[in-house]
Amino acid sequence: MSTEVGEASTMSAAWTRRHLLGLEDLSAEELILILDTAASFKEATGGCKKKLPSLTGRTCANLFFEPSTRTRTSFSLAARRLGADTVDFSSSGSSLSKGETFIDTAKNIEAMGVDVVVVRHRTPGTPHLLAQNLACSVINAGDGPHEHPTQGLLDIMTVREQLGRIDGLTVALVGDIAHSRTARSNIWGLKKLGAHVIVCGPSTLVSPLWREVGVEVSHNLDAILPRCDVLNLLRIQFERQTTRPFPSVREYAHLYAMNRERLAKAKEDILILAPGPINRGVELTPEVADGPHSVILEQVTNGLAVRMAVLWLICGAL
Amino acid sequence: MSTEVGEASTMSAAWTRRHLLGLEDLSAEELILILDTAASFKEATGGCKKKLPSLTGRTCANLFFEPSTRTRTSFSLAARRLGADTVDFSSSGSSLSKGETFIDTAKNIEAMGVDVVVVRHRTPGTPHLLAQNLACSVINAGDGPHEHPTQGLLDIMTVREQLGRIDGLTVALVGDIAHSRTARSNIWGLKKLGAHVIVCGPSTLVSPLWREVGVEVSHNLDAILPRCDVLNLLRIQFERQTTRPFPSVREYAHLYAMNRERLAKAKEDILILAPGPINRGVELTPEVADGPHSVILEQVTNGLAVRMAVLWLICGAL
Amino acid sequence: MSTEVGEASTMSAAWTRRHLLGLEDLSAEELILILDTAASFKEATGGCKKKLPSLTGRTCANLFFEPSTRTRTSFSLAARRLGADTVDFSSSGSSLSKGETFIDTAKNIEAMGVDVVVVRHRTPGTPHLLAQNLACSVINAGDGPHEHPTQGLLDIMTVREQLGRIDGLTVALVGDIAHSRTARSNIWGLKKLGAHVIVCGPSTLVSPLWREVGVEVSHNLDAILPRCDVLNLLRIQFERQTTRPFPSVREYAHLYAMNRERLAKAKEDILILAPGPINRGVELTPEVADGPHSVILEQVTNGLAVRMAVLWLICGAL
Repeated sequence: MSTEVGEASTMSAAWTRRHLLGLEDLSAEELILILDTAASFKEATGGCKKKLPSLTGRTCANLFFEPSTRTRTSFSLAARRLGADTVDFSSSGSSLSKGETFIDTAKNIEAMGVDVVVVRHRTPGTPHLLAQNLACSVINAGDGPHEHPTQGLLDIMTVREQLGRIDGLTVALVGDIAHSRTARSNIWGLKKLGAHVIVCGPSTLVSPLWREVGVEVSHNLDAILPRCDVLNLLRIQFERQTTRPFPSVREYAHLYAMNRERLAKAKEDILILAPGPINRGVELTPEVADGPHSVILEQVTNGLAVRMAVLWLICGAL
Repeated sequence: MSTEVGEASTMSAAWTRRHLLGLEDLSAEELILILDTAASFKEATGGCKKKLPSLTGRTCANLFFEPSTRTRTSFSLAARRLGADTVDFSSSGSSLSKGETFIDTAKNIEAMGVDVVVVRHRTPGTPHLLAQNLACSVINAGDGPHEHPTQGLLDIMTVREQLGRIDGLTVALVGDIAHSRTARSNIWGLKKLGAHVIVCGPSTLVSPLWREVGVEVSHNLDAILPRCDVLNLLRIQFERQTTRPFPSVREYAHLYAMNRERLAKAKEDILILAPGPINRGVELTPEVADGPHSVILEQVTNGLAVRMAVLWLICGAL
Repeated sequence: MSTEVGEASTMSAAWTRRHLLGLEDLSAEELILILDTAASFKEATGGCKKKLPSLTGRTCANLFFEPSTRTRTSFSLAARRLGADTVDFSSSGSSLSKGETFIDTAKNIEAMGVDVVVVRHRTPGTPHLLAQNLACSVINAGDGPHEHPTQGLLDIMTVREQLGRIDGLTVALVGDIAHSRTARSNIWGLKKLGAHVIVCGPSTLVSPLWREVGVEVSHNLDAILPRCDVLNLLRIQFERQTTRPFPSVREYAHLYAMNRERLAKAKEDILILAPGPINRGVELTPEVADGPHSVILEQVTNGLAVRMAVLWLICGAL
């Protein structure tokens, strides 16, 4: 662990927020408190396998209005490894189909004694709306293309765990920046912890406006590759795109996929992240996905650690 | 708590039923035993938030053949707060799609060591059919337009908690009486505990035959409003109606919606209940739903208390 | 318990497999170790009703890509009665709809700290593919028409429990052998434990090639019936058939359904099994399904016992 991280951790002993809505609002100290807590949980539970029942009697509700395997399950398992109860809601089969408003549904869930609502919704700002209307805690598990803070945290945790620091690293987020909440959460978190962030992809998916918040913008992966300590290969979100942002998947892969040839031109110890589900052959080739630089599955395990940390901090179980 | 309730509670120390199929069959003493038990659970668990693991090792199965968010979740959480395990079945993805009969499905669930089956089905009498065929306990969570006993109990618990008694109160059930199992369960429960019950709504939705069981029938909310201690605004069940029972929603709301103007003509301490999901602007306006007379969310919390009480009494965990 | 079983049990004290993929690979000793363990669990838990929390802190994931009520629930309840946590995945709403490969989905689940993956898939060999790619344990809960080992085990457990032995019994598997994974698992298990196995059904559903592995093949139930100690009436899997293997259900039932008339021609203590969901009036008449020879519901309870045993052995909780 680098010096700046240890110091920051000492400075920020207390967590005071009731919600986790995004990384844009968090201070570097708050980010490091979550990351340190997550690392402790991971160690104490043998890689997030054992239980640590510090939230016994608490109830977490998953309120997911978009399909999700890993995030919903990761939150459920994180809650249960802390001894909390979980309940799942989904858009189908719910009261929403009977004409109830979204906030009324959430208030009803809260009235059943739920402590934390984990919400995913295609509309940006939905978690913020809930946070204004509920007395319980709200965690954003993805609001449209806006933020996905626990994904950003698990990516950052994985980089910090592997490379020992964030400060001074060059991290490129490659691909579908326009539709990616993961990109946004990474950008805010990485910059606050001192990384140099590059967004890279076709001009239809990477806006030049990112320069205004201090992010480097590139449309040429081969040009920036030699400088990168970390590549985070974002999923092409075919399901969110209403127009085709590039001529073909083959064309995209030719320009932006991480493959053996590109790996040969990168730094020797480059770290390859990909917030799954991955499209093999699109964002990266199987030999890269399954190769020594890839930490894709470590990201999944760290997702559990980060979610345990966030639930624990938010529930005030200090 | 009124005197008659305290006495009744003392009189009926024991619960002897294996099933809860409806409120029509219960005695006043049995109703009060459930209500008193629910109130105790609510107090002992800090408003149904904490666990009280008196049913550890028991298993409750939800067998829901109609969409439901709140009732299914409420039963699951009630069971788990008592330490019981829960399993969910639904009509999709089940053996019924492979040609199995309903009773065979239920018998299979029972053979897996389930103690209580909570069933919702669009056909009246389904829970009774199960009760005749299963050795385990059956709780009716809504059988078509027939009964929904735990909803009736939670409504009555909420009135009793707020006003201290049921005996002598005037309670109006407003709206879609014809399609409402909640109305039926409320009618039987309220009358047994001594309330004067009025059913009020358009003549297409409120049958004059209710008079034969001692219920007042009205088609004019404004005429009965000044006499009411409690209004229970039933949801217009658009999904159950095959013909249009009134010209338009606007017309219905004009005649029967609870709004600021009507509130001004009601008793000063009138209690407004609504068994959600509510249609804002149909049965009641947002200012009434969110106003000081509304106990809508208290109903949800009491739903947990009532279900904990029923599960506990039925499992014989005395 | 017969002598040969007791001896075998003593001989094979240790379980060494990480996966349960099929009964074809198991030795008689391994089969008997599972059956003995299952019988012990059933007795120790009062018929699989009580908890025996020997797998606390373990997590089992259900990865079901075909509809299932009983098997999925049976595995979940078995895991939870041993104190393990469970998570459910299904094909809908999962990352597979976002383009992820099956193995990547499974590896992600494993990276969340899952100890055992229970998989059902319509493609034969899927569990074997997972076992080659995952470090955690894999249990086959049905791979197309190939194997369904815990179903085979629960059928065999039920016969052994009722008749005290397997060795020397004549067991007929009747019906849809071609599409039945249950048939295959029964055949391998029964033969290894010394039973004489007959497969019986229309020639479109029963291949003469079974003779090559020492199984008797018959197309005439009435001819073999007097010799049978056990009938296992396989479900006609209408959903797996692409062509009609017989002229009509009526024709099938006429030739192969177990009914009162056939029962009169069978051994006095013949045992009737049917791995549900059953089609009443197709494979067997209601009077047989609900009669004294039927052990259909005992099979369901034994399914729990067998799954508890398999989970416990595989998790090495000796």
